[in-house]
Amino acid sequence: MLDEVEDTTKYASVGIVERQYAHFDETLYLRGGGVLEGFTLAYETYGRLNANRSNAILICHALSGDAHVAGYHTDDPEEKPGWWDDAVGPGKMFDTNQFFVICSNVIGGCQGSTGPSSRAKDGKPYGLRFPFVTVADMVLAQRHLMDRLGIQKLFSVAGGSMGGMQALQWAVDYPERVGSVLFLAATARSSTQNIAFNEIGRQAIYADPNWKNGDYYDGNAPANGLAVARMVGHITYMSESSLEDKFGRRTQNGNRLAYHFNTDFAVESYLKHQGEKFVERFDANSYLYITKALDYYDVADGYESMEAALKQVQCAFLVVSISSDWLYTAAQARELVDGLQAVGQDVEYRHIEATFGHDSFLVEVETMTEIVGGYLGRQLKGESESTEY
Amino acid sequence: MLDEVEDTTKYASVGIVERQYAHFDETLYLRGGGVLEGFTLAYETYGRLNANRSNAILICHALSGDAHVAGYHTDDPEEKPGWWDDAVGPGKMFDTNQFFVICSNVIGGCQGSTGPSSRAKDGKPYGLRFPFVTVADMVLAQRHLMDRLGIQKLFSVAGGSMGGMQALQWAVDYPERVGSVLFLAATARSSTQNIAFNEIGRQAIYADPNWKNGDYYDGNAPANGLAVARMVGHITYMSESSLEDKFGRRTQNGNRLAYHFNTDFAVESYLKHQGEKFVERFDANSYLYITKALDYYDVADGYESMEAALKQVQCAFLVVSISSDWLYTAAQARELVDGLQAVGQDVEYRHIEATFGHDSFLVEVETMTEIVGGYLGRQLKGESESTEY
Repeated sequence: MLDEVEDTTKYASVGIVERQYAHFDETLYLRGGGVLEGFTLAYETYGRLNANRSNAILICHALSGDAHVAGYHTDDPEEKPGWWDDAVGPGKMFDTNQFFVICSNVIGGCQGSTGPSSRAKDGKPYGLRFPFVTVADMVLAQRHLMDRLGIQKLFSVAGGSMGGMQALQWAVDYPERVGSVLFLAATARSSTQNIAFNEIGRQAIYADPNWKNGDYYDGNAPANGLAVARMVGHITYMSESSLEDKFGRRTQNGNRLAYHFNTDFAVESYLKHQGEKFVERFDANSYLYITKALDYYDVADGYESMEAALKQVQCAFLVVSISSDWLYTAAQARELVDGLQAVGQDVEYRHIEATFGHDSFLVEVETMTEIVGGYLGRQLKGESESTEY
Repeated sequence: MLDEVEDTTKYASVGIVERQYAHFDETLYLRGGGVLEGFTLAYETYGRLNANRSNAILICHALSGDAHVAGYHTDDPEEKPGWWDDAVGPGKMFDTNQFFVICSNVIGGCQGSTGPSSRAKDGKPYGLRFPFVTVADMVLAQRHLMDRLGIQKLFSVAGGSMGGMQALQWAVDYPERVGSVLFLAATARSSTQNIAFNEIGRQAIYADPNWKNGDYYDGNAPANGLAVARMVGHITYMSESSLEDKFGRRTQNGNRLAYHFNTDFAVESYLKHQGEKFVERFDANSYLYITKALDYYDVADGYESMEAALKQVQCAFLVVSISSDWLYTAAQARELVDGLQAVGQDVEYRHIEATFGHDSFLVEVETMTEIVGGYLGRQLKGESESTEY
């Protein structure tokens, strides 16, 4: 009976999907001056591309995400679904009955796309020989994928966190190819505090003797350093109140303090677990490169001002911020909304009262479905609701 | 001319002070069940104890502080003064014309008081053989020092951050010996997020191979791990806006992004510098022990409730919170104020609008002088202003 219920849930989703690969011989000229002579993107798709290729939505993933947004790779009942399974499927916020949804692992990543753990021409992993990539470079690589898939114009580009930065950059760099941008819990430029937290994570990796200046692929990975980096990151994804509600001062050992250096409080055990799980699936060098891309991100880069960059935009925006998100704050979201409005762009701004911090964009499924799904539905019907606030 | 100005500033302070040591043969029975058979406290004093020994103020230091609150140890013009030199001296908030000010390094510390880097009976450093200490144990050790100095009742016990916890604990554990508590930018119990940040710092130390389970005193110290821990801590002492105002997205390299993994942004260089400076003066094991004491801190510990603990109090409280302090928030301060009021205690609550985050209690000298100095002045005159809010 339980199995049946689980199966029902599972197959109400997009079901089993396959990771695909697109190889490109083109040279990618990167913002930082480096080049990639040929590259691969790993991607997944959900739903069907319609005849006039007008129903494609590109979902861009965050720092630790990958191409596997939804569904399962196997029929193993133990397998967990993709990172935003709640969002992609029949009747979900990205409704696969209507849309063809694409997600690709970013360039610099470690889940199938070319990154520092990929082999360079000499057959050895790049390590720190990998060129620096920016959010704009991630988007450039995605544009090659859209060309390959024959998608001239995306119905929408959507993303939370670093995914929102990519969506925004799409509209600035390739304005004629984007129908709308869904910019969720993100920022148009990393703040000083954003940079500071990322740098601490990187310092933790550098400090791990297994890191060896990034040349660790034939030995032990710098797992301890990466785990600390992940813990630093993770704490910024949750709000103070969600930590308090979830763990409080509860100890692992009944209500007694242990008076030792093993984990005492439940929150310590949780963080440690997050760190340990992460190192099984993520490459430390990718963490370094992608956090640098985050730090470098400022939509004004290459322009006189943010407004000058936003003048390039030719599509409508949905901007969503979350009250308890202290990583990418509502003030940061409003900076983009103000900038878009200042140059006369069509922008709908929604501020969500939610307690889960930055992660709320993944957790608050009902609200997000109403807002995101509703926006896409209106876009389909040719309506939009510009915000004045 | 410049030298004269510097000298004037210097000797308007308490001038040159000497670190003193008090050795105790008594066994300290610690909350965690451990014992210290004899211990030493390093301390400094400023001003003069009056004839009836009624004008002593104990200042308690924070995590990374020590006994050297104010003044200089030498006449080297390059030397920086004690950590709260702005607060202690003639006419300052703790006016040495009126008060005899004492500060001692906490037990578990590394600046002269017995801690994990001290030698145990076998002549070797304790390392992790050092027993766990709590804030109550720090206060117990200080009580021995007050006995030694012949001070039966402190005019006031004051402290910011962990110093505030100690001040509060004084009033709960030794109510008849405290005239007032000045509780500044502190909390009556560490929050889940407080614990989480401390645990990340500890994990960074554990991850350093030089740490060797705390047994590193005959080799290299775990400097990299401790530096990362300090960086994690430091970011919690500043507000998002103070980081933004101080550094923004300014780079080390003109306005150009460097596209390398050396420090790119000014804030990265600042954090790295904070980490590097800290490891020169602080012991990693002390950092572990003291952060555990912080995590364990809950004034209700040993009582049925916070209110039951606060019923012990027999003195007036000044509680100060800072608007931009996200380490020990105004909500945490108000929890104590509410608790004190619920059991009928005399409490004055002041909330300061300041942008520097947790560190504001050290930085906002003028406001703090008015509030703290004013409170002590009224206490001298036998007045108090209980807050209703």
